[in-house]
Amino acid sequence: MRLARVAHADGVSFVALEPDPSAPRDKVLAIEIDQHPFGEPTYTGRKWPMADVRLLAPILPSKVLCVGKNYAEHAEEMGSAAPETPLIFMKPSTSVTGPSNPVKLPANSERVDFEGELAAVIGQPCKDVPEARGTEVLLGYTVANDVTARDQQKADGQWTRAKGYDTFCPLGPWIDTELDPADLSIRTELDGEVKQDSRTSLLIHDVGALVSWVSRIMTLLPGDVVLTGTPAGVGPMQPGQKVSVSIDGLGTLTNPIQQG
Amino acid sequence: MRLARVAHADGVSFVALEPDPSAPRDKVLAIEIDQHPFGEPTYTGRKWPMADVRLLAPILPSKVLCVGKNYAEHAEEMGSAAPETPLIFMKPSTSVTGPSNPVKLPANSERVDFEGELAAVIGQPCKDVPEARGTEVLLGYTVANDVTARDQQKADGQWTRAKGYDTFCPLGPWIDTELDPADLSIRTELDGEVKQDSRTSLLIHDVGALVSWVSRIMTLLPGDVVLTGTPAGVGPMQPGQKVSVSIDGLGTLTNPIQQG
Repeated sequence: MRLARVAHADGVSFVALEPDPSAPRDKVLAIEIDQHPFGEPTYTGRKWPMADVRLLAPILPSKVLCVGKNYAEHAEEMGSAAPETPLIFMKPSTSVTGPSNPVKLPANSERVDFEGELAAVIGQPCKDVPEARGTEVLLGYTVANDVTARDQQKADGQWTRAKGYDTFCPLGPWIDTELDPADLSIRTELDGEVKQDSRTSLLIHDVGALVSWVSRIMTLLPGDVVLTGTPAGVGPMQPGQKVSVSIDGLGTLTNPIQQG
Repeated sequence: MRLARVAHADGVSFVALEPDPSAPRDKVLAIEIDQHPFGEPTYTGRKWPMADVRLLAPILPSKVLCVGKNYAEHAEEMGSAAPETPLIFMKPSTSVTGPSNPVKLPANSERVDFEGELAAVIGQPCKDVPEARGTEVLLGYTVANDVTARDQQKADGQWTRAKGYDTFCPLGPWIDTELDPADLSIRTELDGEVKQDSRTSLLIHDVGALVSWVSRIMTLLPGDVVLTGTPAGVGPMQPGQKVSVSIDGLGTLTNPIQQG
């Protein structure tokens, strides 16, 4: 199932995205979910054609956990070896933005980079999850862009400022609840030019290991998001450009770049 | 005014703490606030003697922002100079715990330190707040302990794991809405022995500057908490000990230490 959060004429709702049985097969309906999408969703009976809704960030997480250097070639391009255990950091919930929303470049940074990533969305409260069960606590997967002010990341040492600006965590376009994340193509394009091109099979610590690792530190709550790290090829974005992160079988997350 | 969050026989409420007019002058009443304490609070009419309630963390923040090395003597004891601009990091909201709740030491750390701090609580949504108006967006102040697994902080480089365990952010006992934070005594005691003893006048970046700095990066929301940094004297805690952070005119935040 694909779960999304949409703006419609009457407000904002969680929806399931399903083929429209009364239309050509590429037409999709947004079918309203009552309250929230965790557990077995119940439906309100309202539905809209996709043309009548706007996709928002598919979840508003209470926290966003990220992992540094989780693809060997990216660790190499950053000038250091990948750490033996996952190196975690956080992005504030206020950095989350949705598909098609602009990423705003702060005036005090001279280089803001894209970092395309697979993101896991937590489906239930959990703590101390064993590695082998790390994917069982998930609602599903979405696409993320761990936008980073590279100059400030280097200057500060701590990464919170560089990765914490409003709009620096695009998520979307939806959450896929049935995806197998083991070996998917992940690509980032800037104005259509492929910049990152890798596979999730190259993750050093896989999704189950990452979720387990984080849950041994802190309680994870429904809707929390764990970003799994970016492959090699990170690079800067300029105002007026468009950045797209695509994961096979999941979808494409596109955001325009604006001067903030 | 002093604002608190309390557990009582019927649930959990925000309250104002006021002298009990019908009792000796050190007796306090917890007067229930309707919904939330932001803006001009409205009262439900329910009230309890303090003996009938239990103080919880006075607020559940959507995010906790912290600053490293904001007292010169602490920067020195950590073996480095204080940075020219505030060095920020985050603690997850799940690390927040209340007065008297145990701080739980993770089994995989060999040294977990106290760090007593003055904390500012945000009172309204804000972004790009000028320094001179940094304290105007506050609901008030509380006491915090930025508990830190020192060995993991050094090993990781990024501080998220070391400072992010559940129970690693005691807050309380209440929020004082009228405190002048300019020059207050701040002390941390371990089993009654004074370990940190400084004054908030020694903050390198004062509260207004810190709130302004963070708000230039990310939108701050009502209830968000900004920890202002710890003075010199940090040190380890052992199971069975009690740690107390006291700020003059504000109160004392005490937590027992347990093996997790």
